[in-house]
Amino acid sequence: MSLSAARPPGGSPMTPGDPVSAIETPALVIDLDAMQRNLARMAEFARHHGMKLRPHAKMHKSATIAKMQMDAGAVGVCVQKLSEAEALAAGGVSDVYISNEVIHPDKLRRVAALAGRVTLSIAVDSTLGVERLAQALAQAGTSVDVFVEVDAGQGRCGVAPAAAGALAQQVVSHGLRFAGLQAYHGKAQHLRSALEREAAIRHAVTAARTAQAAVTASGIDCPLVTGAGTGTFVFEAASGVYGELQAGSYLFMDRDYADNQPSPGAPVFEHALFIKSEVISRGAAHAVVDAGHKSHAIDSGLPRVWLQDLEFANGGDEHGILRPRGDALPALGDSVWLVPGHCDPTVNLHDRYVVVSGGLQGGSVHAVWPVDARGCVA
Amino acid sequence: MSLSAARPPGGSPMTPGDPVSAIETPALVIDLDAMQRNLARMAEFARHHGMKLRPHAKMHKSATIAKMQMDAGAVGVCVQKLSEAEALAAGGVSDVYISNEVIHPDKLRRVAALAGRVTLSIAVDSTLGVERLAQALAQAGTSVDVFVEVDAGQGRCGVAPAAAGALAQQVVSHGLRFAGLQAYHGKAQHLRSALEREAAIRHAVTAARTAQAAVTASGIDCPLVTGAGTGTFVFEAASGVYGELQAGSYLFMDRDYADNQPSPGAPVFEHALFIKSEVISRGAAHAVVDAGHKSHAIDSGLPRVWLQDLEFANGGDEHGILRPRGDALPALGDSVWLVPGHCDPTVNLHDRYVVVSGGLQGGSVHAVWPVDARGCVA
Repeated sequence: MSLSAARPPGGSPMTPGDPVSAIETPALVIDLDAMQRNLARMAEFARHHGMKLRPHAKMHKSATIAKMQMDAGAVGVCVQKLSEAEALAAGGVSDVYISNEVIHPDKLRRVAALAGRVTLSIAVDSTLGVERLAQALAQAGTSVDVFVEVDAGQGRCGVAPAAAGALAQQVVSHGLRFAGLQAYHGKAQHLRSALEREAAIRHAVTAARTAQAAVTASGIDCPLVTGAGTGTFVFEAASGVYGELQAGSYLFMDRDYADNQPSPGAPVFEHALFIKSEVISRGAAHAVVDAGHKSHAIDSGLPRVWLQDLEFANGGDEHGILRPRGDALPALGDSVWLVPGHCDPTVNLHDRYVVVSGGLQGGSVHAVWPVDARGCVA
Repeated sequence: MSLSAARPPGGSPMTPGDPVSAIETPALVIDLDAMQRNLARMAEFARHHGMKLRPHAKMHKSATIAKMQMDAGAVGVCVQKLSEAEALAAGGVSDVYISNEVIHPDKLRRVAALAGRVTLSIAVDSTLGVERLAQALAQAGTSVDVFVEVDAGQGRCGVAPAAAGALAQQVVSHGLRFAGLQAYHGKAQHLRSALEREAAIRHAVTAARTAQAAVTASGIDCPLVTGAGTGTFVFEAASGVYGELQAGSYLFMDRDYADNQPSPGAPVFEHALFIKSEVISRGAAHAVVDAGHKSHAIDSGLPRVWLQDLEFANGGDEHGILRPRGDALPALGDSVWLVPGHCDPTVNLHDRYVVVSGGLQGGSVHAVWPVDARGCVA
């Protein structure tokens, strides 16, 4: 892994100290200084508000980064998939929460095995899921923390809030450790106005409170409500119900999150993830860079050009098309920096991060980090 | 590569003969019988029309598949990126055309080195590109076929048709082998009506003919015009100008291409690429599968559910949301097959193909093939 991470197939190996100009394009680049400021600001926010921080590692898929977050005070990380958990555990991450449902018996056997190697927790939202999890854990002789997922307004996974008590009872009756409620409202994250996001989280808080009451009414203690994303965490932190924040994107701040009106009281997060591209073709009124949507995900819209005032248009899988705006078009061979529309699926396209310190202009390569859980969708 | 291809991290190895039901989800699955029928039909079409066939391997990124296409009569394959060419060459593909511009001197040194190992061709659309290519080849003592790219209507790379003669002259004056014209019209491929696509290709044919005349007026022979995609190749084949077809997606036929009104005279291509997913959560009126846009690209729209009449809605990076239509919702743990909206970037998300023979229902695993050039964006 480390070899392929450091050396693109056929390409030049990147060595610490290489200038930014030597980074081959297209490349996934971290501005380390900006990332560390983001990391520290979120850690400080959580500390100040008495919240546990368990950042979502589905965003960065990197054991190196997960361990940096934990060194700064995070209690562990979240992932969405078992194979992500396995990859991060293999990279030395000691506390992982699979904030999603796992149903297949083969995968649950792997969950149970993984629980023998790291501190593991998982979400459930069905009787079948609880039964199969209990069976796999009993066979392996291991244990996990179990969160009951509540639909906090997203309409995806999770039980209705009032049904949380019954499912928590099943968790307990199967001899499993009930650890609390998973209540993440994904749809709230990108509502552009802070007021809209606050209203959506008011709904999530009500759902979480209803679920919590249903659990305690069943005679079961509810130790924790966990959830929140980069768009809303200030509201969950202020709710009095949530005890743990799962935000992940704050670390890299993609274009889509930066397009949100800031939440009052939120730390300022800077763009820290970029695609370095190069102009490979020049027309009279447009330039073409070597980065298309195989280099940056466009599910949340196109990237924004960074450091230059240029318009970016979709040029397909392998190309981006630039048109002049405040700045003139770059020349053939020039570098163009892009801020991805959505960091999570953009990271998942790449095998490695080129980590730059000293800034994108004039800085140098600090390290190359593998994207350990790239492609871990299972 | 072969180990990681055969064995997902932590997951069950797939062994030939395993039933389809044993394939872990989400998985990128080829219906081998359908793919082979598509492959044979396109090879037969090209033969029948006296056209060279050079399928675009940016779509499948597989040396195994490229060699199957060449065994069936293809003269070689196209790619978009140098690193793709290197990966396929390493997998034993002997004839590769980089149908795109390469500008960076380091990459052109690798182009020149690769030309010493395989039959290589490349596109140019600038004086700088020609000069740098010539310099790299002179230093390495190797040679490539050089195609001048013409803007055939897409407005991306390529010179204006009338400028093709001057650039061909530069190719020749630098001692390079001028091999013909690259004239691909990407925007024509997904115009829904066959008449619209035909009209767009009429424009491309005019552009190619103008460029051809400009080249011959410069006293240079123009041996070949190459281009065409799965949406339009019947029109390029009928043009009398194009001599080589670059279509790639015919092999897998994604949802977006299947949504086109068929071109008159085109072979019938079947869906041969699927995402196998599993239901991991069930609400009263919806089900959630474990495949989101980290498993299938959505740049050309959402996947279509296969074998069942269900509506698919975007559930984010890791989830798909199903709603009933003609069929009732599947149960927790049920398999759901998806036809991706766009095959190229979907393939690029996965490290391996699980290749099934005997059909998706009742068939078995024939092989696991690596996606050799996955992530090769440089």
